[in-house]
Amino acid sequence: MKPTHIEHIGIAVKDLQDSIKYYEEVLGLECYAIEEVKDQKVKTAFFKVGDTKIELLESTDPEGPIGKYIEKKGEGVHHIAFAVKGIEKVLEEAENKGMRLIDKQPRKGAEGLDIAFLHPKSTHGVLTELCENKNE
Amino acid sequence: MKPTHIEHIGIAVKDLQDSIKYYEEVLGLECYAIEEVKDQKVKTAFFKVGDTKIELLESTDPEGPIGKYIEKKGEGVHHIAFAVKGIEKVLEEAENKGMRLIDKQPRKGAEGLDIAFLHPKSTHGVLTELCENKNE
Repeated sequence: MKPTHIEHIGIAVKDLQDSIKYYEEVLGLECYAIEEVKDQKVKTAFFKVGDTKIELLESTDPEGPIGKYIEKKGEGVHHIAFAVKGIEKVLEEAENKGMRLIDKQPRKGAEGLDIAFLHPKSTHGVLTELCENKNE
Repeated sequence: MKPTHIEHIGIAVKDLQDSIKYYEEVLGLECYAIEEVKDQKVKTAFFKVGDTKIELLESTDPEGPIGKYIEKKGEGVHHIAFAVKGIEKVLEEAENKGMRLIDKQPRKGAEGLDIAFLHPKSTHGVLTELCENKNE
């Protein structure tokens, strides 16, 4: 594995509109997309900074992963996503090196990317997403 | 403010050598510098991914900021640093917009950057660093 860049940083927030306001008005970034990912029970908002995106995540269900995260830890950085090439092989390689995979096979995430998560127990506390844009 | 890119992501770790091993052997990144920042009671290790760095932070003192963070929250993402131009003015502007500043004036951080932190209470839970490389 050799990630080309950090594709995005996922940040759990309580209120998407309030948080968009902060990222736009204080940090001066521009929200270019809002998307609901029903599967993950979240509404997301995207901003671009250099070659990385900020992905804000608001839960649409207290029982969803972001709802539970905020309940336990409050708002904050939820995951880091690394852009890779050949995600299936990368996952296999990670598993062979002892990583605990949350997704054994890639699935579809926001913006049509193929994504898979590594468990934070095997990545020194950071929920780590690997992702590939196969439309590029 | 309009950050040019995410300068780095700061990650609190318990053991720098163990974590370097993970970032090198599993993620395939290369640690290009190890630096002690005595003022912050940390030892840091740096990796480059695209235009962003990963900064691992190991505490050298349980009473230091990273020592306390790990005691309370465990290992994980500690802060996000945005690269800005004209940091003094940017800080003034942020304060005028109601942000709570941890540093009213920039101070020297790792790699010789001028840095200042915004309090996570005013940034929706993300400890936010602003930084400028004045040697560029």
